[in-house]
Amino acid sequence: MTYCVAVKVDSGLVFASDTRTNAGVDHIATFRKTYTFEIPGERAIVVLTSGNLSVSQSVISRLERARYLPETESLWNTVSLYNAACLVGEALRQVQLRDGPALVQSGIDASSSFVIGGQIRGESARLFHVYPQGNFIEATDDALYFQLGESKYGKPILDRIVNSASPLHEAIKCILVSYDSTMRSNISVGAPIDLTFIPRDALQIALNQRIEEDDPYFLMVRRQWGVGVRRAFAGLPDPDWISQNT
Amino acid sequence: MTYCVAVKVDSGLVFASDTRTNAGVDHIATFRKTYTFEIPGERAIVVLTSGNLSVSQSVISRLERARYLPETESLWNTVSLYNAACLVGEALRQVQLRDGPALVQSGIDASSSFVIGGQIRGESARLFHVYPQGNFIEATDDALYFQLGESKYGKPILDRIVNSASPLHEAIKCILVSYDSTMRSNISVGAPIDLTFIPRDALQIALNQRIEEDDPYFLMVRRQWGVGVRRAFAGLPDPDWISQNT
Repeated sequence: MTYCVAVKVDSGLVFASDTRTNAGVDHIATFRKTYTFEIPGERAIVVLTSGNLSVSQSVISRLERARYLPETESLWNTVSLYNAACLVGEALRQVQLRDGPALVQSGIDASSSFVIGGQIRGESARLFHVYPQGNFIEATDDALYFQLGESKYGKPILDRIVNSASPLHEAIKCILVSYDSTMRSNISVGAPIDLTFIPRDALQIALNQRIEEDDPYFLMVRRQWGVGVRRAFAGLPDPDWISQNT
Repeated sequence: MTYCVAVKVDSGLVFASDTRTNAGVDHIATFRKTYTFEIPGERAIVVLTSGNLSVSQSVISRLERARYLPETESLWNTVSLYNAACLVGEALRQVQLRDGPALVQSGIDASSSFVIGGQIRGESARLFHVYPQGNFIEATDDALYFQLGESKYGKPILDRIVNSASPLHEAIKCILVSYDSTMRSNISVGAPIDLTFIPRDALQIALNQRIEEDDPYFLMVRRQWGVGVRRAFAGLPDPDWISQNT
């Protein structure tokens, strides 16, 4: 499985992806699921991938090779993030057309989902979720994050903490806590975690960081979060109807 | 959807279920999903249900009516919880045999899952998860809880807090927090919550409590938990590589 999350706050965009892929429990590998498309000062775009690895890699290859076809619209020259999301959807449909029937015939799930976000000069920062059929939705101030893959374990903390006024460093910390909850409850999501962020109007990627399992900061966050949660739990009083009976 | 959870700790068993059922978003209703089978001093058994409501209700009806057929093995006379789990699986298979084909023909999911736990005199407390096919597994000290339905949102807190040495009141509080996380992230799980517990060797149900949405204790737990989690989050320091860039 996979766990990817991207958050759009007023101060910018944060993207994260795990790196574990598995085709059965005896075929586990590490693959990057974060891809960047950047012309500093002009555009900074990040794509997160999930689903069938052969499909999502083919989609990324198509998006990347278009850089060298300057007469073609691509992530490198398109004028809006909306068009960029269209391009991801279009590339996905082309790969599905080529590989989908053979995969389906063998009973293999050929679906792939993507998150694409960033900022192109002349636009504000935008964030899209591209579905396996190639259609997509855009994040708003009310629905400001998208998740791919094993999303449920790590959703409650995002719902509680992140809002559009959250500073970037708070969104980043919240994402790390969300990964901690997910990795603790599901072994198909695994470190290292790739973390990328694009401050608003910077038009470049400020950080593209790989966080290893034994990263001292991540270890500290996991430990301290566990202590904090247990402390919050210990502070909850018992109800009358419990103490009467136990 | 549904969210049910049952925990077996050294001090006894705790069961909880929500009460929301839905057949489409415009057909939402409140149905009890906790059923008790009790002869005080002799046996106390609780069954939690999930999945297709017509199937799970039929299974419960079959289990209940067997009380009046004393020559038949039933939850009221069987000598072990293992046999009780067999009886649930057997009733489920009979209902599937009768209704399954018509449901499948209409493309309706006919599956149902159950948790059954309790204690029968002469045995220790036991807890089983009965799958839609009628087979089942038993909880152990390493895997001491079972969930049905929308299980993922509320799993991290159970994984963090509950172990076999947890007192009953701690297991109960943890379950309420687990419901808070689930209900906050998924509207298909809704109050009231039915909460039942069986202290070890009591051979009777100590409490069978319905917790409404506006229950003062539950409201307080939800509010105080939210404050505690935000405080724990606020206590996490920023890493060097964030503050340099944001």
